[in-house]
Amino acid sequence: MAKIGIIGAGTWGTALAVLLNNNGHEVMIWSIIPEEVEMLRTKRQHEKKLPGVILAPNIDVTGDLEDAMTDKDILVLAVPSPFTRSTAHSMRAFCKEGQKIVDVAKGVEEKTLMTLSQIIEEEIPQADVAVLSGPSHAEEVGKCIPTTCVVGAHSRETAEYLQNIFMSKVFRVYTTPDMLGMELGGALKNVIALAAGMADGLGYGDNTKAALITRGIAEIARLGIKMGGIPETFYGLTGIGDLIVTCASVHSRNRKAGYLIGQGKSMQEAMDEVGMIVEGVYSAKAAIRLAQKYQVELPIIEQVNKILFEDKKAADALNDLMLRDPKTESDAGAWK
Amino acid sequence: MAKIGIIGAGTWGTALAVLLNNNGHEVMIWSIIPEEVEMLRTKRQHEKKLPGVILAPNIDVTGDLEDAMTDKDILVLAVPSPFTRSTAHSMRAFCKEGQKIVDVAKGVEEKTLMTLSQIIEEEIPQADVAVLSGPSHAEEVGKCIPTTCVVGAHSRETAEYLQNIFMSKVFRVYTTPDMLGMELGGALKNVIALAAGMADGLGYGDNTKAALITRGIAEIARLGIKMGGIPETFYGLTGIGDLIVTCASVHSRNRKAGYLIGQGKSMQEAMDEVGMIVEGVYSAKAAIRLAQKYQVELPIIEQVNKILFEDKKAADALNDLMLRDPKTESDAGAWK
Repeated sequence: MAKIGIIGAGTWGTALAVLLNNNGHEVMIWSIIPEEVEMLRTKRQHEKKLPGVILAPNIDVTGDLEDAMTDKDILVLAVPSPFTRSTAHSMRAFCKEGQKIVDVAKGVEEKTLMTLSQIIEEEIPQADVAVLSGPSHAEEVGKCIPTTCVVGAHSRETAEYLQNIFMSKVFRVYTTPDMLGMELGGALKNVIALAAGMADGLGYGDNTKAALITRGIAEIARLGIKMGGIPETFYGLTGIGDLIVTCASVHSRNRKAGYLIGQGKSMQEAMDEVGMIVEGVYSAKAAIRLAQKYQVELPIIEQVNKILFEDKKAADALNDLMLRDPKTESDAGAWK
Repeated sequence: MAKIGIIGAGTWGTALAVLLNNNGHEVMIWSIIPEEVEMLRTKRQHEKKLPGVILAPNIDVTGDLEDAMTDKDILVLAVPSPFTRSTAHSMRAFCKEGQKIVDVAKGVEEKTLMTLSQIIEEEIPQADVAVLSGPSHAEEVGKCIPTTCVVGAHSRETAEYLQNIFMSKVFRVYTTPDMLGMELGGALKNVIALAAGMADGLGYGDNTKAALITRGIAEIARLGIKMGGIPETFYGLTGIGDLIVTCASVHSRNRKAGYLIGQGKSMQEAMDEVGMIVEGVYSAKAAIRLAQKYQVELPIIEQVNKILFEDKKAADALNDLMLRDPKTESDAGAWK
């Protein structure tokens, strides 16, 4: 049994609180939003965002960050990526040496091109930072539907400790040392989800979407490997697995924004209609900067950028992708 | 412009006839079934299997195998896998030296564990055999929906020649020398599609299906790489890409049979209800024999075999998969 503080009470933080409590751990959730604290304390669920996923009476809810962090074996950092740096900055003062922090959000900071774990390590140098990712809709994890994830950590010891904490008969956890690959795949997959949504919006089929997913992860892998990730990560649960679940989901904000753009709306109209942060729009910019820095070709992500920021028609962009120079699928094979 | 004989007039052969005719080639289709020849000649479409995909008047339809093969630059072999050997055997007498034959079916012969191209090469030693595969529902290709595929061949020259023949603005073609990897991925993916269908039938979610797809291709790759395939193939269009499209489709016979089994029907009841050959059932057996021969662990495929042939409940099998010993995601990464 471990004592766990969950920093951030959105859908994913709430679902993980339920999972970890079911696993027999002592769980406390923190939110910066007083109304959210009050709702979770009294209603014991996220009434609109995650209805029916009930917090057991022994799960504490607090608005006091120090309280949520004191005397905890593990902190789960579950705030959206734009708030990772500011939250980590606030956490530093209360953080003990060697504190295990598991980040469960995804993103690349546009200004610095840093991953979220790198940001946390910069803000809280005394922490032992790990990440958890994989194809895991919060709605399904909250309902105990069988799900798989990966824990990435610097040391095998931390990874296996966290694997044991999270793992249950409905939540299978693998480990990896490749935190960078996990985080890049998780952040950049949202750009491909935008593209897949656009194809749906244009009325294209399953063939088109499977092509975008497959060639999309190939270009993410090309970049990520050059940055130091390992191929198996991009072709694993946190890469292609998470991309599959995002592109299949009607709940994905990124897929939905892409769908609206495919139907002819502008980026701004699509974002207004979705009404929440569409992370792929920011990751698309960061990806292009990374591609330039590491000199890697990202044809799908380049076209998504042209659609988003240069008013290119989605149909024209897809046409250009189809008619690029004929290529081999990879350079790895040897001809006779 | 090339002269092309299409051997086999099912949905895929018919859709490829339309594509190749649109590309400006001279196309003749052959069927062994007189009623099919008559239907395609008079109605110019597969009325039940592929309605609305119309054969242009200049596409010839014949029941005479020699006629279909004589003076052709390319033969496209599009018969279902159980008929590949017998059809190739009949073709041998009419086949010129160096005849290009593109196999577009998928399967592993249970008795010999040979892939379809290996069977064709055994039956027609004088042919230059290639394969075409990828995420490509015939229904969508027939309707000119953007699709990607891969041509595998022994020589770069043949691969690039065929790439040029098939490629169009709605059909993007990549090349590879890894025919073995393409064919193994294409055949074994049907076993994973059965498992994904079972998860749907059990009422599980997108998380579960994404996990089965991702870990499924990982075990197919493990086997295929040991047999001589290259990793990029299994993580490419003919591997994960084709698996994604199969698991997403309500038309897939394999997914549907799995769905019925997940709902509690026996293998025989499911096959009777689907009413057509469920290839994954045969591939599942072949995969287990390959796993034994090459000493590779295939946990998902093993559980599918237990469900199909040992009356194990699908829910119990999934439970056993979730509760296997905790593992790393791959052995490729290095811990600090």
